[in-house]
Amino acid sequence: MRAVWFEGREAKMIDQRRLPYDIVVAGFRDHNEVAEAIRNMTTRGAPSIGAAAAYGMCLAALNKKDIDDAARTIKAARPTANDLFYAVDKMLTELKKGTDPIKAADGYAQDIVDKCTAIGKYGAALINDNDIIMTHCNAGALATVDVGTALAPIRKAWADGKKIFVYASETRPRLQGMQLTAWELSQERIPHAIIPDGASGHFMKKGVNMIITGADRIVANGDFANKIGTYEKAVIAKELKIPFYVAAPVSTFDLRTTNGDNIEIEERSEDEVTMINGMRIAPVGSKALNPSFDVTPSKYVTGFITEKGILRPSEIHRMGTK
Amino acid sequence: MRAVWFEGREAKMIDQRRLPYDIVVAGFRDHNEVAEAIRNMTTRGAPSIGAAAAYGMCLAALNKKDIDDAARTIKAARPTANDLFYAVDKMLTELKKGTDPIKAADGYAQDIVDKCTAIGKYGAALINDNDIIMTHCNAGALATVDVGTALAPIRKAWADGKKIFVYASETRPRLQGMQLTAWELSQERIPHAIIPDGASGHFMKKGVNMIITGADRIVANGDFANKIGTYEKAVIAKELKIPFYVAAPVSTFDLRTTNGDNIEIEERSEDEVTMINGMRIAPVGSKALNPSFDVTPSKYVTGFITEKGILRPSEIHRMGTK
Repeated sequence: MRAVWFEGREAKMIDQRRLPYDIVVAGFRDHNEVAEAIRNMTTRGAPSIGAAAAYGMCLAALNKKDIDDAARTIKAARPTANDLFYAVDKMLTELKKGTDPIKAADGYAQDIVDKCTAIGKYGAALINDNDIIMTHCNAGALATVDVGTALAPIRKAWADGKKIFVYASETRPRLQGMQLTAWELSQERIPHAIIPDGASGHFMKKGVNMIITGADRIVANGDFANKIGTYEKAVIAKELKIPFYVAAPVSTFDLRTTNGDNIEIEERSEDEVTMINGMRIAPVGSKALNPSFDVTPSKYVTGFITEKGILRPSEIHRMGTK
Repeated sequence: MRAVWFEGREAKMIDQRRLPYDIVVAGFRDHNEVAEAIRNMTTRGAPSIGAAAAYGMCLAALNKKDIDDAARTIKAARPTANDLFYAVDKMLTELKKGTDPIKAADGYAQDIVDKCTAIGKYGAALINDNDIIMTHCNAGALATVDVGTALAPIRKAWADGKKIFVYASETRPRLQGMQLTAWELSQERIPHAIIPDGASGHFMKKGVNMIITGADRIVANGDFANKIGTYEKAVIAKELKIPFYVAAPVSTFDLRTTNGDNIEIEERSEDEVTMINGMRIAPVGSKALNPSFDVTPSKYVTGFITEKGILRPSEIHRMGTK
């Protein structure tokens, strides 16, 4: 099963809000519904958001809607992940060329999976037997249609017989590290432990060989946006001389943006922080802030693991314009 | 109301596990019950643990129990906070000198409050009008009988009319930052926001003037143990050149321990991470790790705010033996 696919004239998605309790498949017949599913995080993770957006554009075309209008609606669903804009623009081009909508969107989704497989191959070569690896949030199969970005090298190294151990930081407020990454790792029986986000530094100091995260947007100078909490790990990794890798397909590159200060950071509802499973956990008199992403400057990045190989931050701007 | 006190032959404590939902006072008539209340975190925070331990010793004496045996039981309740050992040893000395048990324990608790008041005075002098201050966990009145350590300078600056804003990081797994610090701040109407632990670096990069935390143990070379997540903030503060202060009474100093590598770090149940309010939130196939504290090397500390003034890390070892 994939995280996002097309079947019976519906865009299907594993409802990631229900994991790890239930595996529920949601189906959408209309691009407005798909935009809402991206917004409310039925599916999340930059590459999966891209695939969902492609199927949203596909539905708009099949339903004979104005595809430029649909493109605007879908792009407005969330502001940070570059794959969302990349996928919509790619579909617009294909649809205007007259490509079959389902074939174009399926091709986009399959392309992501192929890229993730390549990321796994390049990344696994960096992992040694007995390595302890830390990741953050979920950049696994759920986030990327299948295989994963940050989890792809981990999966491949494990499949190759390397003994590894993974720390999954829980990733408050929505707990994607605990509820999605740990769930994926336990499905594959990869040894791992969930840790509170604030314990990352403690365990890095005790001994971590490598950190691998995904990315939502990588800009021309090599700065990148990823789930809130990523910047902290990168700073501490540099301090402790732990290699810090970012795994992402080139569709995550935004070369029109020169540096990380210009990336729009989504602010989500404070309820994600102050409530858990519908129950308020914060004092009634207090407010919370909930930025969904942070920006890590390129100087903290050892390398970007892409489908084209490992790139240094200074090589990002050479990847051509999109 | 204080966090810990003695009344009607009972050691009384605000049950901090019930906040911010309910204000419940628990009463204990026996030193074994007090040791259990320290272990299960009915009361927590190094100075409040010290006061609870003093009242436990007081109860042992009033109940004509073997006070050396009671001392061992109470010291075994939790391993990291120095105040626990300090308070028990101080009470042993007083009781063997023939001091009235209640007078000795009340004196110990009042002494903490006086020291916190002095910490507030010294610390507030470091705070400027319009400063943005970040703290972690709870080092407020609840943690220290009254007034607070890290919160004492914040309270005093606010009382002096300085406009300040406080970021309280939520402090997973037990959420003392969200449930206790934010609650104390809202009681005093001090402007503040709760943030996820992983967002600390993001907000520090946006602009924080000062970080103040408490400490559970400060050793001879200036390394200190505090709630898990403190080390990360200290590393990032140094990277961003944000002053990092630790507020604690001298009873937190452990000069017999030469450096932070020798501090025992309490490992608590993984259930604190994998469950919230009795409900499992983690996948069934995954384990969690739950170190309660981390150790921050002295090189990241700007100064220790104590009742004797501001000390540099290199000045700790001169504070005499205990």
